[in-house]
Amino acid sequence: MKERGREILVGKIREPEEISNDTQVQQMLAVARSRGIETAFDRADQTAARCPFGSAGLCCRSCLEGPCRIVPNGSGPRRGVCGADADTLVARSLLNTMIQGAAGHAEHGREVAEALLKTAEGKAPYVIRDVGKLMRVAKGLNLETEGKSINEVAKAVALAALEDFQKHEGVMNWIEYRGHQKSREIWDKLGITPVNAHLEIAKAVTRNAMGGDADPLNLLLGSVTMGLVDGYSGLHLSSDLQDILFGTPKAVKFNYSLAVLDEKKINIAVHGHIPLLSEKIVEWAQILEHKALTVGAEGINIVGVCCTGNELLMRQGVHAASSFSSQELVIVTGALEAMVVDIQCIMPGIQQVAECYHTEIITTMPHVKIPGATHVNFEPEYADDAAREIVERAIRNFAKRDQAKVVIPTGAVEAHAGFSVEQICEVTAKINADKPLQPLIDAIKDGTIRGVAAVIGCTNPREPQDIGNVTVARELLKNNVLIVTTGCAAHSLAKYRLMNEDGLEACGDSLKAMLLQLGQLAGLPALPPALHMGSCVDNSRPLDLLSAIADELDVPISSLPAVGSCPETHSPKALTIGTYFMAHGVDVHVGVDPQISGSNLVARTLTGSREDQGITMDGLFGGKLIVESDPVRAAAILLERIDMKREALGI
Amino acid sequence: MKERGREILVGKIREPEEISNDTQVQQMLAVARSRGIETAFDRADQTAARCPFGSAGLCCRSCLEGPCRIVPNGSGPRRGVCGADADTLVARSLLNTMIQGAAGHAEHGREVAEALLKTAEGKAPYVIRDVGKLMRVAKGLNLETEGKSINEVAKAVALAALEDFQKHEGVMNWIEYRGHQKSREIWDKLGITPVNAHLEIAKAVTRNAMGGDADPLNLLLGSVTMGLVDGYSGLHLSSDLQDILFGTPKAVKFNYSLAVLDEKKINIAVHGHIPLLSEKIVEWAQILEHKALTVGAEGINIVGVCCTGNELLMRQGVHAASSFSSQELVIVTGALEAMVVDIQCIMPGIQQVAECYHTEIITTMPHVKIPGATHVNFEPEYADDAAREIVERAIRNFAKRDQAKVVIPTGAVEAHAGFSVEQICEVTAKINADKPLQPLIDAIKDGTIRGVAAVIGCTNPREPQDIGNVTVARELLKNNVLIVTTGCAAHSLAKYRLMNEDGLEACGDSLKAMLLQLGQLAGLPALPPALHMGSCVDNSRPLDLLSAIADELDVPISSLPAVGSCPETHSPKALTIGTYFMAHGVDVHVGVDPQISGSNLVARTLTGSREDQGITMDGLFGGKLIVESDPVRAAAILLERIDMKREALGI
Repeated sequence: MKERGREILVGKIREPEEISNDTQVQQMLAVARSRGIETAFDRADQTAARCPFGSAGLCCRSCLEGPCRIVPNGSGPRRGVCGADADTLVARSLLNTMIQGAAGHAEHGREVAEALLKTAEGKAPYVIRDVGKLMRVAKGLNLETEGKSINEVAKAVALAALEDFQKHEGVMNWIEYRGHQKSREIWDKLGITPVNAHLEIAKAVTRNAMGGDADPLNLLLGSVTMGLVDGYSGLHLSSDLQDILFGTPKAVKFNYSLAVLDEKKINIAVHGHIPLLSEKIVEWAQILEHKALTVGAEGINIVGVCCTGNELLMRQGVHAASSFSSQELVIVTGALEAMVVDIQCIMPGIQQVAECYHTEIITTMPHVKIPGATHVNFEPEYADDAAREIVERAIRNFAKRDQAKVVIPTGAVEAHAGFSVEQICEVTAKINADKPLQPLIDAIKDGTIRGVAAVIGCTNPREPQDIGNVTVARELLKNNVLIVTTGCAAHSLAKYRLMNEDGLEACGDSLKAMLLQLGQLAGLPALPPALHMGSCVDNSRPLDLLSAIADELDVPISSLPAVGSCPETHSPKALTIGTYFMAHGVDVHVGVDPQISGSNLVARTLTGSREDQGITMDGLFGGKLIVESDPVRAAAILLERIDMKREALGI
Repeated sequence: MKERGREILVGKIREPEEISNDTQVQQMLAVARSRGIETAFDRADQTAARCPFGSAGLCCRSCLEGPCRIVPNGSGPRRGVCGADADTLVARSLLNTMIQGAAGHAEHGREVAEALLKTAEGKAPYVIRDVGKLMRVAKGLNLETEGKSINEVAKAVALAALEDFQKHEGVMNWIEYRGHQKSREIWDKLGITPVNAHLEIAKAVTRNAMGGDADPLNLLLGSVTMGLVDGYSGLHLSSDLQDILFGTPKAVKFNYSLAVLDEKKINIAVHGHIPLLSEKIVEWAQILEHKALTVGAEGINIVGVCCTGNELLMRQGVHAASSFSSQELVIVTGALEAMVVDIQCIMPGIQQVAECYHTEIITTMPHVKIPGATHVNFEPEYADDAAREIVERAIRNFAKRDQAKVVIPTGAVEAHAGFSVEQICEVTAKINADKPLQPLIDAIKDGTIRGVAAVIGCTNPREPQDIGNVTVARELLKNNVLIVTTGCAAHSLAKYRLMNEDGLEACGDSLKAMLLQLGQLAGLPALPPALHMGSCVDNSRPLDLLSAIADELDVPISSLPAVGSCPETHSPKALTIGTYFMAHGVDVHVGVDPQISGSNLVARTLTGSREDQGITMDGLFGGKLIVESDPVRAAAILLERIDMKREALGI
């Protein structure tokens, strides 16, 4: 079946309306094409004929006997030169992907931990904005707070965080702190509980290299360890420390879409992941606002792209311009003075686009550069100097803007975000102050809320933009499933009005009623149908919520009618996060082929059900991988799993 | 030009004599084929048509927009979907390879450090065999030894080693200890000096992932950091700690080739890398020798394969059966009761071969398994239990031997090894007791020794076995270049008599005379033409020697007429070691395409000369990469570089 926009195009250049339903994106794409500017969408079409070996995980480049390509069932080599077969190759390909995902988030956590340490020591110009969270985290880590100053506690917390990249025995501190005990027992029994993030990453690289681990099931367990590394040293650690430094998100309003660029202002896009940089850019944009006037601008307008955009909108209501896949189009507005980037998901293609405009791409991490871009080294100790320089560059760039090239779409969407677990509980506490989770639990029990789904992940230039994310969300909402969302998927849902009361029309009756009730308690017309929980590292928040509910009910997380869905998967990080969810017994749907089809064993282990023969993720952990490119079908499968778990729970 | 054995075969199955000049290997290969047993050589022929994209480094699988294959100069996509161009893709491919290499050796070092710690604490059944080395290493690390017990010093050394996987600021302890100051200044200035091995590996994975570092030169500097991680937390650290635990190698004799299998004995092959396991197997084979008699065998015969074979032969004269590429043929003798493996370079194909015989493959590390093999978990604390069980399994397997299948070649070669720097200096000290390096330095100055070459690395089933290694060595020897050797290249040189006095015929007159003179001082007819310095982690030893000579002359290592050559490159680890050599200003030759041809920029940076335009390794560090598949031509290029450096030194 070829749904509109779902055809496999070989060499066909898609029309803008096949790339995105977003008329603003369509408009900017047409502008880009009219100017001969190539974007990721164009390159996705050019490379549509992808390597069939790599696409199935059946290619290996781990030594100089290769590259080896194998053909498990056809005429051709069935093993690599070393003897590795399809199952081994695919399992290793997957572990390689997991390692990339885990390392990204782990390093994010470590950078934030270093900044917290320096802040506590008075060496970096950040402040502890959420002392309450600091104390709660400290207590969770069994650190002494009595008689200690805020900085002393912050230092102890930071050192405990850094231990999760250093300790050589025991278990990661953040797993001791936040790991749900019933899941933890399974991991310990399987011998997969991580000791420290860095050690596990190095070990995973080694086992995955030529002449290392050749046992597919053993390698898959190694992938689960990577999921746990991502989840605990990456997600939970980052969310906790970022909340401490920048504040735990509370209900906030922001605008979404390319239309948030402001022709009259100096526009700076912040892109990447770690809010150490983006928060400082926002701060210095405020400090230097007056300078904008001296160059004829009405002010400085910060817009977010990707995850760091989520960090800023969650805490400060900073407007967000684009998700991952259309990042280049922000520049095509012709009104962007600078795009400031740190790490992960930064398409190097932005530099070629920027060179057609006055836009300055500014890299900030010494190990992440783009040829042709400006580099301003950003380190926590010198954060103010760097941020100041960056904003001043943007101010100077305003004069270089070519008015003739400015095309900013209109029609930003208003969206509500800021739904940390703390914020959700603040609302529900108005119904039950002693047990704030009880209203949610009751609603799940009586079917008002059929289940909970985290719609997370990416946008992917190969996929019709936002369609997968929005369709899965709408199908689930219609069936009274509560939606929480993070990452670029959240961008999609915001854009299509699922973060304001317009989105209520998508909801089933009982869910709608609850969102209205809770919303009014929160001082809003309604809670939004999609509760924005934050950036990709904030996928800790859905898990915290499920953990807390599971504790109340004294069941494992795997018993809860909860699912995860990443319909427009692009990044390895999404797969690693998905593995972290599965390790807790949460089913995870991915809408893009995860490149494991070359091995029946690997595919079966990941996607099989607990009743199936052989070892399955579902059997081990209580959650499976669901690979389904049709978002309607995917939602139906997720509802089946939700209902299965409801029935087993007796609700 | 198509030299014999150097043709590019597409689908042609090579005859045994095209695969190896070694008649024993030829014999075993014929036996395998007659029994329908597939080996790596066969699979190399089957996969001879390698992917042209991957072979040039022009393939990327770092996200789900891909796989992307790009065609820099032809008709086809010039960039990946994200916009990464050929230079970026090739630089990232190379960094990925470097990460794999560095992680392998770093993890090796860490495992040994953990074992030393446990030994010092009385928790693991190893002993400190070289107290002198312990004290020297402790002093080099600026640790207190006065009034401390051996175990206290050992513990402090072990903890200092483990810090090199933990510290978050400063510089690796082993770099402070062993890094040559003049090289160190260059690394510090470039900002590439590693802080801790694990941190650098995680950072490298992150920068290399989708949306990370896109600057090819920046990525190449990241590769150099990986070389330093490999060199210092891998090579130097491992050599030092292994010398402490197992003894600093001294002159020793051993036999080489498949003929070392003994039909009358229980044969156990130890394969892999970390001597924690292999030393215990040797120990328990001795303890349980008597049990062999009870099953009708005359004893237990341990044979080494790959690097752990080198570790054993260097310290104990244990015979060595095979290098990497012919590892499966050890089993084809039909006389192998068990092959015991740990990690790295273990072809999973050995299991399929073993299943045609009574041979039991025994894996020992929990994260390195092979389906179908037996797993006996080996941890330092329980080393004796595990080693005992393993040896007893082998003893029981003797009864399962099928005599009809036993074919052991004849004609092992005697070889001299054990040439640690300490051993070399012990010999030269007989000429000059105060300054043992002076005789070598004088010989280099007056041209008796034209230069020093480390012939190192691998054997590769695609390449005619041993030809590259031996030809480069012989060409250099004929020109009075002193050869030191490690790894599987050392296996080649031993096999072809370059480690006994037969090899003197290959040497130029002045070199021969010196080897005779030094040999007689050592109580041998002559020093062997190829001085075996050990396993691949013992590539620290050539660098220690060069460091010491450079210190005596008060010059940077890059000034010395010294080169490295890896003619039969197979493993990423070889490339990372090569990078570590280049970072010190030593030219490195590789004989197998390192898969960087897709980027002129990357190729030029690595292989260009200091006089060339643009940034080159030679210009930055004083050493370049030489890619040359013809070993005679390669030796000629290396001689040119040696002579160039002699001239610049004024000698």
